[in-house]
Amino acid sequence: MRRKLDLSVYVITSAALASPRSVLGVVRAALRGGATVVQLREKKTSTQRLIELGQALLQVTRPAGVPLIVNDRVDVALAVNADGVHVGQEDMPAALARRLIGPDKILGVSAETVEQALMAQRDGADYLGVGDVYGTTTKPDAGPPIGLEGLRRVAQAVHIPVVGIGGITPDNAADVVAHGAEGVAVISAVFGAPDPEEAVRRLREAVAQGRRRRAGHHEPA
Amino acid sequence: MRRKLDLSVYVITSAALASPRSVLGVVRAALRGGATVVQLREKKTSTQRLIELGQALLQVTRPAGVPLIVNDRVDVALAVNADGVHVGQEDMPAALARRLIGPDKILGVSAETVEQALMAQRDGADYLGVGDVYGTTTKPDAGPPIGLEGLRRVAQAVHIPVVGIGGITPDNAADVVAHGAEGVAVISAVFGAPDPEEAVRRLREAVAQGRRRRAGHHEPA
Repeated sequence: MRRKLDLSVYVITSAALASPRSVLGVVRAALRGGATVVQLREKKTSTQRLIELGQALLQVTRPAGVPLIVNDRVDVALAVNADGVHVGQEDMPAALARRLIGPDKILGVSAETVEQALMAQRDGADYLGVGDVYGTTTKPDAGPPIGLEGLRRVAQAVHIPVVGIGGITPDNAADVVAHGAEGVAVISAVFGAPDPEEAVRRLREAVAQGRRRRAGHHEPA
Repeated sequence: MRRKLDLSVYVITSAALASPRSVLGVVRAALRGGATVVQLREKKTSTQRLIELGQALLQVTRPAGVPLIVNDRVDVALAVNADGVHVGQEDMPAALARRLIGPDKILGVSAETVEQALMAQRDGADYLGVGDVYGTTTKPDAGPPIGLEGLRRVAQAVHIPVVGIGGITPDNAADVVAHGAEGVAVISAVFGAPDPEEAVRRLREAVAQGRRRRAGHHEPA
């Protein structure tokens, strides 16, 4: 019954980068720009506040037809009835997360290697977040960048879609998609942008350009 | 089907206070001393590690017939099939937590005031953690101590059992029980003790003494 997941521009929240703007305000702008997925990811926030924020975000993502995915916290995802959950390698194991959220909700898993990607696919992931592609500034625990070739290797090893993540901007997003990603996941490129709506619009154009390049319609980068 | 909950000595984990000992090692000692409830509470730990720790703790609490309750994280409680969950006022609302864990698991709620206690009771709490009684050193966000009279007011307002929490030691635990608590919840009094087994044993004796005092058998404090 689930609609096909459009991973083109996958926007991850950051209250710290949004400040002094609100997370909700930046998400609204991102949705106007054409964000196709929103992920609630706040590591230093109380459970109560995460639930309130999740409920508020659903009020804007649902009318936009955009899935809201909760990072790490299966409890918060269940409490607000979000559309899915995303787990990293230090979060709940994917198979356990799938069991708790059931077959219908979206499950995303972070993968850096082909081995992690294959395990996540086997354990019930609907999509993978693959990176760090270029070197992120917002996840201090990320390993060294895997680069575009690392991304390509992972994308080719699985049959589920992948989004690239890590240091992606409107200027390099086309390359990420040209190397096999269905879309791009961004934190600072949108939450740190002076104009998040415009940033998402430019990311969408870059993703579309990357798809044309992958399909063989080469054009100047 | 659930056995009656024995709240006499309710031991809450702290990896920081346990160090260089392991959480599991201190819990084993606490169980030997007669701990009646163990709560897994680690705020700065990854979900993966919380799950691993929860699974390891269940291997020792289950054979001891002692319930393992997870602080805040309903997802972790469900993932490891713990015996219950404990939520504070900044965690998941109690009614939501009850809905997610179902009717059979234990639900504890922190309450500082009569109003919070009545709401928690209405929302499905099996017991309350009431405090800060004496002034805790391990929860920097706790408000000013409510004292023994504050504890008594809350305990008298509800029909579910309460445990006192906050600055409780073997030397003052009898007073806490004499003022209406079924038992005492402790972090540093056990996890910070040189001999956690002996600390729990002394707490059990103090709780028994407090019960005798409450029943009217006055003896020197």
